[in-house]
Amino acid sequence: MAIEPFAAVDIIAAKRDRHELNGEQISWFVDAYVRNVIAEEQMSAMAMAILLNGMSRREIVQWTDAYINSGERMNWDALGRPTADKHSTGGVGDKITLPLAPLVAACGVSVPQLSGRGLGHTGGTLDKLESIPGWQARLTNDEMFTVLQETGAVICAASEQLAPADRRIYALRDVTATVESIPLIAASIMSKKIAEGTKSLILDVKVGSGAFMKTVEQARELARTMVDLGNDAGVTTRALLTAMDVPLGRTAGNALEVAEAIEVLGGGGPSDVVELTLTLAREMLDAAKDQGFVAKKDPADSLKDGSAMDVWNAMIKAQGGKPDAALPVAKEQHVVHADKSGVLTKLDALSVGVCAWRLGAGRARKEDSVQNGAGVQWHATVADHITQGQPLFTLHTDEPARFELALEALNGSYDISEGATDIDRLPLIIERIV
Amino acid sequence: MAIEPFAAVDIIAAKRDRHELNGEQISWFVDAYVRNVIAEEQMSAMAMAILLNGMSRREIVQWTDAYINSGERMNWDALGRPTADKHSTGGVGDKITLPLAPLVAACGVSVPQLSGRGLGHTGGTLDKLESIPGWQARLTNDEMFTVLQETGAVICAASEQLAPADRRIYALRDVTATVESIPLIAASIMSKKIAEGTKSLILDVKVGSGAFMKTVEQARELARTMVDLGNDAGVTTRALLTAMDVPLGRTAGNALEVAEAIEVLGGGGPSDVVELTLTLAREMLDAAKDQGFVAKKDPADSLKDGSAMDVWNAMIKAQGGKPDAALPVAKEQHVVHADKSGVLTKLDALSVGVCAWRLGAGRARKEDSVQNGAGVQWHATVADHITQGQPLFTLHTDEPARFELALEALNGSYDISEGATDIDRLPLIIERIV
Repeated sequence: MAIEPFAAVDIIAAKRDRHELNGEQISWFVDAYVRNVIAEEQMSAMAMAILLNGMSRREIVQWTDAYINSGERMNWDALGRPTADKHSTGGVGDKITLPLAPLVAACGVSVPQLSGRGLGHTGGTLDKLESIPGWQARLTNDEMFTVLQETGAVICAASEQLAPADRRIYALRDVTATVESIPLIAASIMSKKIAEGTKSLILDVKVGSGAFMKTVEQARELARTMVDLGNDAGVTTRALLTAMDVPLGRTAGNALEVAEAIEVLGGGGPSDVVELTLTLAREMLDAAKDQGFVAKKDPADSLKDGSAMDVWNAMIKAQGGKPDAALPVAKEQHVVHADKSGVLTKLDALSVGVCAWRLGAGRARKEDSVQNGAGVQWHATVADHITQGQPLFTLHTDEPARFELALEALNGSYDISEGATDIDRLPLIIERIV
Repeated sequence: MAIEPFAAVDIIAAKRDRHELNGEQISWFVDAYVRNVIAEEQMSAMAMAILLNGMSRREIVQWTDAYINSGERMNWDALGRPTADKHSTGGVGDKITLPLAPLVAACGVSVPQLSGRGLGHTGGTLDKLESIPGWQARLTNDEMFTVLQETGAVICAASEQLAPADRRIYALRDVTATVESIPLIAASIMSKKIAEGTKSLILDVKVGSGAFMKTVEQARELARTMVDLGNDAGVTTRALLTAMDVPLGRTAGNALEVAEAIEVLGGGGPSDVVELTLTLAREMLDAAKDQGFVAKKDPADSLKDGSAMDVWNAMIKAQGGKPDAALPVAKEQHVVHADKSGVLTKLDALSVGVCAWRLGAGRARKEDSVQNGAGVQWHATVADHITQGQPLFTLHTDEPARFELALEALNGSYDISEGATDIDRLPLIIERIV
């Protein structure tokens, strides 16, 4: 047995007593956990101490580095092209990655995106793409490189070799009420993005009922922490705080969201999805200037001229998908009609997300599977005029027994106002953090 | 599988967020842990949240109750005699239980004491008694009752059925830096003492370098918490804060301390051990008044007339011990002589305790064994006049290789002052908390 330079209990006690941990302590603690020298109960006590006592900026950088050093670090220099990626903290109807990755690639910057699956009321990008017949999320690193080289964009599952320490610690945090720690959230997200090898990164930090961060203050702190982490690690990193009080676009659900993404790539789609996609694309292209990138066209033109759609089709095909095949449709539908006329003054993101989840679009536990066709369409969004009797929502599921609970989630989730139309909602783009 | 009324993660999150837990949450949480429905990592995250966010008096009472309810509860009503017990939070040279239990029994109050082993630099009562040839720590409940009935006092190991939740949680706290929580320390001590079935309880809360509580403020808070817990549970409970800046008596080590205890029972012994023994005995007899006890003699008389020694002999014999047999002596001795004359102005309890521990008197891990004969004698204590060349310490061990590190522990542990004799030490009895 190797002689260990520290005792785990002393390092936990130091954090418990609000001392700042040094780099050696942090890198040993994470590494010893991965080597099973530190037990699960020790890491969970540490996570609770970090959650309650916080971490300095230096500690967060070193904790993140320890996650990165637990696994492999990817590198795309051999592409000979600038790279950029986007990460969203997750929201309801947030399918932005789907049109965004091919759009940015169409403008000349490669997008190597390692993505995840959804848990709870927020959907996962891989779940959405898996509703496309034939599409495969798992690629080897060589396959990933090939797709990236040939199409300019790739969205696939992160390998188990990427920040494996974070993978284990995340599972532990999930059962020990230690998820809600800004240092630990930032380290979890940024370790994977830095290890992924992108040179530029735009963070979309969602704020509102449907997001993990409920207030602008929390979101700003998380964004600031992550932007600093990325830049310290040599990745040009910026963040936008964006609205998640109202769900994005008009659909929440896997195949439903793919269809909406394709509308956007075809030059149509809901205005909020288009606006956020273009804003993020411009940020990604701008951040890539640090790599010597010079933009030749605006992303709006790449939506109009079909070049973004071409990349999408190539990218889906390269991963076994059939971009022209019909998307799965749920077996059963239920329509909710407006009971009066007026202006829609409220549409709560969390309620809509829970509704889609209950219809089968999301999972409660990691082991659960999702229904490709399940989800919700809302036929109007906040500020729209409503006529009594018009369809407001269409609910989709393969299992009609799910309608009752799903409809319950919509109770009180929207308001139609006949008089005053004073609408209290967040602006789509709340703040930019560089 | 039974449906559980709560999710562990929600209760941890509530404590994390400084909400007060209700009785149902607390009793379920501890019970579910014992049933292995709650994992070790969840209990350790909870322990850290309790350590950092504290507990209300009501929460501590209910947490303690949950420990008690995890096992059996003893009852001595069938004795038909008043009962009293003493618990010390542990110190260096603290052999008080040995003369105290037979002394109180000799005065008419039965002492049913479940005791423990030592860990680190503080000795355990059972370790000390086990240095008596033949003496057995393990008794069945029926055997315990018989010894108590026949001799008036019994000191034995707690069964695994007594507060088993605390036993497991204590082991977990030990490796997760969550020992130092006053609510958890109080619940751990008091659950065992309440389940043990004594009707009166005197707590000896040690303060100083050789004790777990380093300051009077910490000790007072712990004492207050435990006194309230005991009285709330119907046990007449009082506490004394007593000095542990200087070690108690003149010996630290198992057989060495038994010999000192026998001196006290014979009417001699170091004055501080005699004073503390008599003070605690009077408190125990006084507290037993709530059970209708009427004192007929002062404990000092029971030391003088040999009646306390008679109970000691009977008690040791009843557990297989030979009270007349020679006590074990360590194979090797090393004497430290005074290098100058003057007044001993300092003798640090922690240093002496570490010295005894390193000589083999204590254990580093629960699985370790201890040497019966190992330990330290100090031939003078604070305020004594010292003559150059006189023996100051005698170190005892079976393994002479241990002398070097043991002597190192004594470096700087004492001062001999030739001039000023202003001595800064705690009074033996610091405070009484009722």
